[in-house]
Amino acid sequence: MKPSVLCVCLAAACSAPPPPAAEPAAPPPLEARASDFEFRRAEVEAIVAASLADDGVFRSLERLIEVAPSRLAGSPGYDRAVEWALSEMRDAGLANLRTEPCLAPHWQRGDVERLARVEGEGGASVGEYAIAALGGSVGTPPGGIEAEVVRVAGRAELEALGDRARGAFLFFDEAMDPREIDPFAAYGRAVWQRSRGAAEAARAGALGALVRSMTLRRDDFPHTGAMRYEPDLPQVPAVALSTLAAEDLARRLAAGERVRLRLELSCRTLADAPSANVIGELVGREKPEEIVLVGAHLDAWDVGVGAHDDGAGCAEAIAAVRLLKTMGLQPRRTLRVVLYANEENGLAGARAYAADHREELARHVLALESDRGGFSPRGFDTNAGPEGFARLSAMAALLEPIGSARVQPGDGGADISTLGPSGVPLVGLVPDGARYFDVHHAGRDTLEQVAPRELQLATGAIAALLWLVADDPQTFPRNPAR
Amino acid sequence: MKPSVLCVCLAAACSAPPPPAAEPAAPPPLEARASDFEFRRAEVEAIVAASLADDGVFRSLERLIEVAPSRLAGSPGYDRAVEWALSEMRDAGLANLRTEPCLAPHWQRGDVERLARVEGEGGASVGEYAIAALGGSVGTPPGGIEAEVVRVAGRAELEALGDRARGAFLFFDEAMDPREIDPFAAYGRAVWQRSRGAAEAARAGALGALVRSMTLRRDDFPHTGAMRYEPDLPQVPAVALSTLAAEDLARRLAAGERVRLRLELSCRTLADAPSANVIGELVGREKPEEIVLVGAHLDAWDVGVGAHDDGAGCAEAIAAVRLLKTMGLQPRRTLRVVLYANEENGLAGARAYAADHREELARHVLALESDRGGFSPRGFDTNAGPEGFARLSAMAALLEPIGSARVQPGDGGADISTLGPSGVPLVGLVPDGARYFDVHHAGRDTLEQVAPRELQLATGAIAALLWLVADDPQTFPRNPAR
Repeated sequence: MKPSVLCVCLAAACSAPPPPAAEPAAPPPLEARASDFEFRRAEVEAIVAASLADDGVFRSLERLIEVAPSRLAGSPGYDRAVEWALSEMRDAGLANLRTEPCLAPHWQRGDVERLARVEGEGGASVGEYAIAALGGSVGTPPGGIEAEVVRVAGRAELEALGDRARGAFLFFDEAMDPREIDPFAAYGRAVWQRSRGAAEAARAGALGALVRSMTLRRDDFPHTGAMRYEPDLPQVPAVALSTLAAEDLARRLAAGERVRLRLELSCRTLADAPSANVIGELVGREKPEEIVLVGAHLDAWDVGVGAHDDGAGCAEAIAAVRLLKTMGLQPRRTLRVVLYANEENGLAGARAYAADHREELARHVLALESDRGGFSPRGFDTNAGPEGFARLSAMAALLEPIGSARVQPGDGGADISTLGPSGVPLVGLVPDGARYFDVHHAGRDTLEQVAPRELQLATGAIAALLWLVADDPQTFPRNPAR
Repeated sequence: MKPSVLCVCLAAACSAPPPPAAEPAAPPPLEARASDFEFRRAEVEAIVAASLADDGVFRSLERLIEVAPSRLAGSPGYDRAVEWALSEMRDAGLANLRTEPCLAPHWQRGDVERLARVEGEGGASVGEYAIAALGGSVGTPPGGIEAEVVRVAGRAELEALGDRARGAFLFFDEAMDPREIDPFAAYGRAVWQRSRGAAEAARAGALGALVRSMTLRRDDFPHTGAMRYEPDLPQVPAVALSTLAAEDLARRLAAGERVRLRLELSCRTLADAPSANVIGELVGREKPEEIVLVGAHLDAWDVGVGAHDDGAGCAEAIAAVRLLKTMGLQPRRTLRVVLYANEENGLAGARAYAADHREELARHVLALESDRGGFSPRGFDTNAGPEGFARLSAMAALLEPIGSARVQPGDGGADISTLGPSGVPLVGLVPDGARYFDVHHAGRDTLEQVAPRELQLATGAIAALLWLVADDPQTFPRNPAR
């Protein structure tokens, strides 16, 4: 790094600039220790301070939510989100701006979503439940379908079900385990009900699947999300119930009530629609052909406004690179921002990127994703091997002052997952997870749930890690290709 | 601990109970190491798991906000909050329930709070600013007072002010420094403007003080808070401006505009009013006369509903002791919940408690306070000496799995501060601070800003620490009395 560049950035961010960092005699070995990046501490402090001093990342997210509150793949809102991304990247001074096309699934919720408790066959509604169709679900005929309800709480009950659900709605009511300290672990164990509930319902001869929302919160927001049908099984409609609705239903069934429901959904799947990833770069000063990718997804479920999932990640990715550019911190390698299409219901953007950039993947040094909400950063997860894990840990140790030093094994994120087989080390930002499933895929995912300072802390952590990896004289250890 | 008790609690909280903890051959030395409380790990895990499995603490807070959304000292709402506290403690099965009276300052905001930009003397309003009178401020005559504005950003500018603010409003516009990683540090450096602004304005011959809100957020919520007058100086009205209002005002002044404002306030101070602390206990099984106190304050500023400040702390304190009782974990010493009156504008409850319990303070083993919002816990601060600091650190190490292991020097909290001179070690829960000043003393401090899971994590951390201290065969090291 040129000392003059460092002085500019420190003067902008700190009242009393620390002494300039000296380059070490030799770059740290690949199996790094925590102290090996100590000489970068002043830079990281300056990056974090600059991020905390500027709420631009929140203003950027505000603009996204204003122009494209609804932006599911294939919707007109998604196209407006693409325009937002290009505009923000242009304002950030990124180079090589472009969209890269893909074809994405095109599912529409439609106007009708209703689950009513009815008295007797074709009877009047005596109560409505808060529901949201799962993404990809088929609709019902106009007027809906009616059946009684059979409840299963967990795989064991499903396996022991026998014929009992034939002609009924099958109600999947295994709650996420609140005692799991990591809510993502609880989600991971329960989410099969959402992704496979419709198929399991069909296998059991049921007419539809009702799935308790994937959240730890007791409230009346249903949480949608992706699901898939099995090729050899009938396609039956599937919806998420709010947790309060699920509790009411479970209570009635436990009391021996025969609950009859009428479900009406107007959702449908249309032909695949043109969509696009959006890309911009800060070109590297020494090895411009080597790429450090920072990604997030531009689409969002349609029930909230996707402020956390993943508007936050998109705004952070752009703001992090903007921050480095503003500070004059042009790294050795190229930073590439990729905002992906269609993460939520297909990963079409992620697949297209991996295919279209096939020739270039050997020069993708690392990919970082932010897709777990715009909360205070706690650290990172990674699929890197032991050398990379140690190196990442040594870098993250510099983020201890903001509580973001923890590195754990993991997969990085869905969008960058398509780069894994080529050996690209994958890293995910891990923010505080306590609130994520309050908002995830639900109407509560609004801008009011985002704290500007948390977004700024996350942006600082991302910018610091991008800088450390992209400016490192050593190349981050690659994974074996699969 | 009786093994049967432990088995009950573990069975309730965990699907696979860990093996019962063995009592160590000898209790850990006062200068403890992290491993010295390792034999308590299963208990702490069970306490945390039980807290995560039960959102009762949030329901309790909901009830407080429903019956007493406004509960400043002396208001009818405060009396309803006392009723809430007694009712919650009774439901929790606490013993020795009582209120203990005190006399608290009685300040009323009144209906009129208006700051208008006017054109010429007695001119029409051409714009209104979002303001809140500071607690304790005098009002204005009906019709208000009018003056031009002089801005000072920081102490140096105040000292260099000379005669320029005579007959004007003095506008204190030093922002909290967003680059401070700990927002409480930034608050601590800037808050003199709020607490002393009126006195400094009077000293400068100004007619009133306008203070930029103590927050890092740019929005239109004014943040109120305590202030005090100096005995030998005139009492001039003082208000907080929202940060957007402050920015607008600063921009106009920087552009050379002569800004004339009309301020009208109907706030006033009445005679001191009867108030009360609320107390309940879980009596110790071996040393009931020794007390571990857990405190929070029951009053709140009137501009929001005090969901975080300090409804959260009150609900956590009761829920933590309730949790231990429900689990059958009756500690050696007595746990005493004290919900204090009048923290916000006088500390009358804290003073009364210290005076009324003078004889008993030598048997107060430790006091823990939660008054920094209902966010995810990160650790504790304490005024304990080296032995106590080490012991607290060793206990807190067991909370590493929920990210609450960090112990730092500090004062514990305002309400328990009156116990410090007697040598009682003071400990404060330190939650994540990123969002606290978004809501602190402002209209944004609502229930919607509280995440049940974060409250539950904090409750688990409090319950675990109370258990470790109150059941410890060793007595927590005392501070020297002052």
